[in-house]
Amino acid sequence: MNLERKTIDDWKASVFSDGSKLFVSKEAINLKENIDISIRFSVVNPIKSVYLRYTRNGEESIVQMNKDKVEHNFVYYKAQLFINQPFINYHFILATEDSCYFYNQKGLYDHIISEEYDFKLVAGYNQPSWVKNSIFYQIFVDRFFNGDSDNDVKDDEYTLNNFKTKALAWGEKPYDYPKGGNVDFFGGDLKGIEKKIDYLKELGINAVYLNPIFEAPSNHKYDCTDYFNVDKHFGGNEALKELTEALHKAGIRIILDISINHTGINHPWFKEKEKYYYIYNDGSYECWCGEKSLPVLNYNCEEVKDIMYKGKDSVLKLWLEEPYSIDGWRMDVAHNVGKVNEFQQDVSIWKEVRKEIKETKEDAYIVSEHWTDCSKYLQGDIWDGTMNYFGFMRPVRKYLGEDDVFLGWKIKDIKFKKQSGTLFKEEVLSHYGKLPHVMKALQFNLLGSHDIHRINNSPSLDKKDVAAAIMMEFLFPGVPCIYYGEEVGLSGEIGTSGGCRFPMEWNEDKWNREIRSLYKKMISLRKTEQILVEGSFSILDVSEDYLSFARFDDKKAFIFVNSQSESGCDIEIPMNRLGEADTIEIIEKTVPNALIVKEFTEDYIKVHLSKKESALLKVVFK
Amino acid sequence: MNLERKTIDDWKASVFSDGSKLFVSKEAINLKENIDISIRFSVVNPIKSVYLRYTRNGEESIVQMNKDKVEHNFVYYKAQLFINQPFINYHFILATEDSCYFYNQKGLYDHIISEEYDFKLVAGYNQPSWVKNSIFYQIFVDRFFNGDSDNDVKDDEYTLNNFKTKALAWGEKPYDYPKGGNVDFFGGDLKGIEKKIDYLKELGINAVYLNPIFEAPSNHKYDCTDYFNVDKHFGGNEALKELTEALHKAGIRIILDISINHTGINHPWFKEKEKYYYIYNDGSYECWCGEKSLPVLNYNCEEVKDIMYKGKDSVLKLWLEEPYSIDGWRMDVAHNVGKVNEFQQDVSIWKEVRKEIKETKEDAYIVSEHWTDCSKYLQGDIWDGTMNYFGFMRPVRKYLGEDDVFLGWKIKDIKFKKQSGTLFKEEVLSHYGKLPHVMKALQFNLLGSHDIHRINNSPSLDKKDVAAAIMMEFLFPGVPCIYYGEEVGLSGEIGTSGGCRFPMEWNEDKWNREIRSLYKKMISLRKTEQILVEGSFSILDVSEDYLSFARFDDKKAFIFVNSQSESGCDIEIPMNRLGEADTIEIIEKTVPNALIVKEFTEDYIKVHLSKKESALLKVVFK
Repeated sequence: MNLERKTIDDWKASVFSDGSKLFVSKEAINLKENIDISIRFSVVNPIKSVYLRYTRNGEESIVQMNKDKVEHNFVYYKAQLFINQPFINYHFILATEDSCYFYNQKGLYDHIISEEYDFKLVAGYNQPSWVKNSIFYQIFVDRFFNGDSDNDVKDDEYTLNNFKTKALAWGEKPYDYPKGGNVDFFGGDLKGIEKKIDYLKELGINAVYLNPIFEAPSNHKYDCTDYFNVDKHFGGNEALKELTEALHKAGIRIILDISINHTGINHPWFKEKEKYYYIYNDGSYECWCGEKSLPVLNYNCEEVKDIMYKGKDSVLKLWLEEPYSIDGWRMDVAHNVGKVNEFQQDVSIWKEVRKEIKETKEDAYIVSEHWTDCSKYLQGDIWDGTMNYFGFMRPVRKYLGEDDVFLGWKIKDIKFKKQSGTLFKEEVLSHYGKLPHVMKALQFNLLGSHDIHRINNSPSLDKKDVAAAIMMEFLFPGVPCIYYGEEVGLSGEIGTSGGCRFPMEWNEDKWNREIRSLYKKMISLRKTEQILVEGSFSILDVSEDYLSFARFDDKKAFIFVNSQSESGCDIEIPMNRLGEADTIEIIEKTVPNALIVKEFTEDYIKVHLSKKESALLKVVFK
Repeated sequence: MNLERKTIDDWKASVFSDGSKLFVSKEAINLKENIDISIRFSVVNPIKSVYLRYTRNGEESIVQMNKDKVEHNFVYYKAQLFINQPFINYHFILATEDSCYFYNQKGLYDHIISEEYDFKLVAGYNQPSWVKNSIFYQIFVDRFFNGDSDNDVKDDEYTLNNFKTKALAWGEKPYDYPKGGNVDFFGGDLKGIEKKIDYLKELGINAVYLNPIFEAPSNHKYDCTDYFNVDKHFGGNEALKELTEALHKAGIRIILDISINHTGINHPWFKEKEKYYYIYNDGSYECWCGEKSLPVLNYNCEEVKDIMYKGKDSVLKLWLEEPYSIDGWRMDVAHNVGKVNEFQQDVSIWKEVRKEIKETKEDAYIVSEHWTDCSKYLQGDIWDGTMNYFGFMRPVRKYLGEDDVFLGWKIKDIKFKKQSGTLFKEEVLSHYGKLPHVMKALQFNLLGSHDIHRINNSPSLDKKDVAAAIMMEFLFPGVPCIYYGEEVGLSGEIGTSGGCRFPMEWNEDKWNREIRSLYKKMISLRKTEQILVEGSFSILDVSEDYLSFARFDDKKAFIFVNSQSESGCDIEIPMNRLGEADTIEIIEKTVPNALIVKEFTEDYIKVHLSKKESALLKVVFK
């Protein structure tokens, strides 16, 4: 170690802790245990003493940490923490001769900090442990594969918003009805998924998420008319039983999509059980986002709670149990549930829902739809994860050069400042920085969905951007989910929901081989390198022009770099937070020879990237 | 207006909105009302369109705002917001040709922001409306004035922690017993306060906060033995009745201090009502911060809830009602209440407490002791205010050059980076930026208390720092509270609680006239200038060396400036957020001729301040 080269200020960037094994002695924490908490920083530092600061029974508690060990170029400090209460938040205080610093999940500060970005521990959190090692695949059932043409919807079978059913041929383009008719059907069904299990296995999938399958007249089935029966056009309950059996046999988990917020207007309850809904004296009623066909369930009514989640054979329990045995729920419009004007009961309802679900199946996954700031639901007592639009998809797509789709729906022609690694870092950390570590690995990272066009169809992104996004999805903390067809570059149209729901392309000649091969490579990498699942995460260096981040432990790191600079750029990847490189291997780069490792020292790796290029380096430490 | 001088980037600093009348059409908001929300910025700007972004029933809602008016150099945009739910948070989105900006209570950002610093509205918030116009005075009863020597504690009357009572003469120094004996008494009582009402009135006080007065053996009385009786040495219940009558007649409100967290160990309940406490099989019991003499009440026991706050004649209700008619409660160690290991019931207990108190007396003030991050309790449904250590006292004292006392208790020799306006701004906004506007004026701003030595006794601060602190206390959003004796520069010792509790100095010859005159001036200013109570607040410009902030409306501003620069410094106070100065008046400066207004234009006022000087300017806009 060349001490002369180091400056005293280098230590600031070297400070690191998180909830991984290296820094918290136990992942699944219980009440009344002692846990060791560690922090490390460069051996060259001005630190006199290190403190762990947490709140215990509301009291600010500060304990001095002891020097534990010196390994490589890092000194580790450790303190024991007694887990007296279910939720504990903490940060670190580093004191020098004449100053002190505060370190939380967002970074190092020289002022007293508030607690929202503290590190967080959750005792007794019932983690669905299978989730983090999953590669999810989302299937919009009508559009995946027609396994049984006998159950297909017929032309004119249903009328919805004055539109009549159209039975379309596989490969046709769905039409986006102006009033959300959603009445064009392609015949996809559960048997179709069962028949494609080999396809999923070959791709490396070990969990599927199905859009709603319960009885409903639309193709998307968010307008449920019977929560107790799988739609006959998808094969009915028997088909689900067979599918889950077959999937489980193949080592594939399955979660189902459900809206407990609203039913379809054709649900018999809407006629028979007025008290199940918010129906007003003038005959109007609460409906989802003004959509009259989706009346909102009233959770002030105990019967609704009973039938939906509290009762023995309630909806949310029934399907988790044998013979259906699904592995979890994706909660549709979860951000709206329990919130109707003066009644804002979201927290109490969701806590009850969690309790009932986890008592039925402890390792069931609860992942919710939420598009914006949702950290309050991700503290260990409500959901396990969200569709990670806010902390992953939106920052990634925006960084790569697409204007934000969500804001774009509401603000015509919204433009963002040119993509910037600096803004990306701020957006990502403002979400991840609030979560308990154990939950970060459970966030549902996606690039597209039935609501957002696949990234390969974005007019403002090119194939190098798409490759960057795919790599980032498999490198970020959280569980990746491939939206059916993404892996073959399925075409689509932007700006409509129909455009995100083109039928799956089964003609291999039409597949985008480059994308498919990148997906397969990243899936395989994630399955062999547990560090991508459980390793520490740190955004290393960012600028207006580039970003770099790493997953790492004390043995090695995977480092992702991307340049958006017009002329390409040299990036000096700082290594003082990670470790000193012994060997560097280029695992993936978007274009052969796009990346050149120009030099590396104990402190940095200098690379050159041309415009829009990405690379993934594997670094083994000395 | 000289357009040439302005640059296109000036608009960023000019953006402003808050919850004051100028920007929110109604202060006391109710459900189902329409409210107008406004934002303003410089007329010279690149903004194409302005949006109000809020969540309604969980849904991100974005409405375009309309240009409302141009006044002075500002353009105002307005939108109507329907108050459908009790809590609404919002921020603004400003779109330019090629970018967009997000504006919340903490500032202007060019990335998508999370919601913790959103502007916040609370419908149906039962504001104690008298509080914001109050000048509070905190009295530690035993040390203020002996109005009835017949009720004095006798030598050896009590034994506490093996120390026996000592009756001391007024003016002696209290002794800080190593084990917290707190058994030295000076004879102060409620009659003494009553006799000093004229003193309080002359000073300008219109609200008092008394440290605990209920029966207890110590001088501080946090070790209560009977919540239903005022200690006989303070004059008993009759004395309280007389005092509140006399105070109210004099136009002075009164709040009392109480610990609902714990009783004293000598409380009869501790022997008679085992279930009222957390008593374990081995005979140990929960006590406050390890202090065996203060056993913690068990709120899992319904009887405890009933007797403390739920029942008809419960403790928290009784004293609010006639004939005692107190005006509110100061909740001791509120940060600990309801938090005992696996039982973390703080939110539910406090919500119940609030409901019961407000049903008994709607305008009762609930102000709680809390030393650290407490914004979650200040959203309109739990407390009205806290002892504002976190958002006011700590940042102010730290900025002025005192190392943080709170951290100093737990970390020996902790040092902070030299005082910095930049860090001050960060610390202040990280607290105020999370509060609903209506609650900012209710925060209990203090410079010292029975727990923290008076600022004039701080060895690291000089008299110019003390003057700066006093000025800041009366200029900051919140209600100022003078800790008895502060106004005359009462001496004390640091590092002990006894040192903060010297008996009041009644010999006028020993008063610090300079401090007293500044207090009187600031009190009078605050009473005549409603802008200091309800006006907008903005930190204008800060650096490592100085700070400037303002209270303002659309007619005028009060601007505070302070320099910490070794050599003094020129400060250019930016006026583009406030308005263009027509006249400038120097209201107060710490040393005559300390401040020189060097020049002023439509955009800035340039002043020179020598080291540690402060000044308060009154600016009337054109």
